[in-house]
Amino acid sequence: MASQKRVGVVLSGCGFLDGAEIHEAVCTLLSLDRRGVKLVATAPDVEQLHVVDHVKGAPADGERRRVLVEAARIVRGQITPLSAVSGRDLDALVFPGGFGAAKNLCSFAVEGRAMRVLPEVERIVREVRGAGRPMGFICIAPVIAARLLGPEGVKVTIGNDRDTAAAIESWGARHVDCKVEDAVVDERLKIASTPAYMLGPWIAPVATGIDKLVSAVLEMA
Amino acid sequence: MASQKRVGVVLSGCGFLDGAEIHEAVCTLLSLDRRGVKLVATAPDVEQLHVVDHVKGAPADGERRRVLVEAARIVRGQITPLSAVSGRDLDALVFPGGFGAAKNLCSFAVEGRAMRVLPEVERIVREVRGAGRPMGFICIAPVIAARLLGPEGVKVTIGNDRDTAAAIESWGARHVDCKVEDAVVDERLKIASTPAYMLGPWIAPVATGIDKLVSAVLEMA
Repeated sequence: MASQKRVGVVLSGCGFLDGAEIHEAVCTLLSLDRRGVKLVATAPDVEQLHVVDHVKGAPADGERRRVLVEAARIVRGQITPLSAVSGRDLDALVFPGGFGAAKNLCSFAVEGRAMRVLPEVERIVREVRGAGRPMGFICIAPVIAARLLGPEGVKVTIGNDRDTAAAIESWGARHVDCKVEDAVVDERLKIASTPAYMLGPWIAPVATGIDKLVSAVLEMA
Repeated sequence: MASQKRVGVVLSGCGFLDGAEIHEAVCTLLSLDRRGVKLVATAPDVEQLHVVDHVKGAPADGERRRVLVEAARIVRGQITPLSAVSGRDLDALVFPGGFGAAKNLCSFAVEGRAMRVLPEVERIVREVRGAGRPMGFICIAPVIAARLLGPEGVKVTIGNDRDTAAAIESWGARHVDCKVEDAVVDERLKIASTPAYMLGPWIAPVATGIDKLVSAVLEMA
């Protein structure tokens, strides 16, 4: 039997308006577990940009939550701070989406094309890339791949949103339109991406696209 | 084409230690969406029993959260307060588990055999049962079915935990041992149940059991 692959999943909180998109995160876990992967769930131990009331769709004034503590809800407490995870110990790395990816892992939601990537996130992406291992980016998370690997001409999708695609291309990356049930694979740089809730409309097609992404990532691992 | 079935899903928060078990809830949504069901997600608009830090596994002192607001995270804000949902408008009803089901929907986690069911929850269960429609109960949630339908001799499973099974039988219900990948169906009362994270160990077998439960519930709807 081949040794079990270790796959990191970087979460950005818990809830699509201020953290990780929960359906995307759970569908990722399901696709990985069905393939017998050893999960290494992780998140940065930083404060969330803000807390959003998901009934009202508006910020909950005065509330403060931490990304790691909320992300732990999605993985039943089985989580390691990102600072304690080395990309060199992983066979692959996957980033689910949600606004948390654009608010807590990088500043795309606030700064657009001028966005910065959280140093811990940049560090692990460069470690995994440096080791020649594959990565998957879901929903809005491909902006992180595009920002960091744009100079290498990485190919990604975020669906078909023109503004986000233009930002991605402004960094030297290439954007490819894609349907929700599909994934785009850059075989040269071993980067897979899928639109998920950038297109929606609900969980079944999102799960199909994520399963294709996970399959592609593991084939390259 | 048959008209689309409307299935209620009652959530108890967001996170297995103080709310709904997220994997169970999302796997339920996925199984329903793959079968073309119209989702009616709901939760009671009450305060959570407490808030648990899912990294430490201990109560977060001083924090207060509401069940409806946190549950909304799992369904991207598409949720209706339980007080506004009538069981007579549903073709079926499903309860995912997590400690929230035993802390916020009933008092089993605190009072054991002396537990009470939240009046709103009792009301909707009796409406759906009165209309002769099926229900599904996942993980620890079958204690709610057992407590309310025990006098009718309902048959349920929570896996194989002897103390919980004894409580269930103390109310007149019948407990049947079951593996995580399976579901138990009481065809007379149209009640399906599956152990999920009462047994675990992780998401793939839990998803298999939940898919069997959803399939059984929809066949009876």
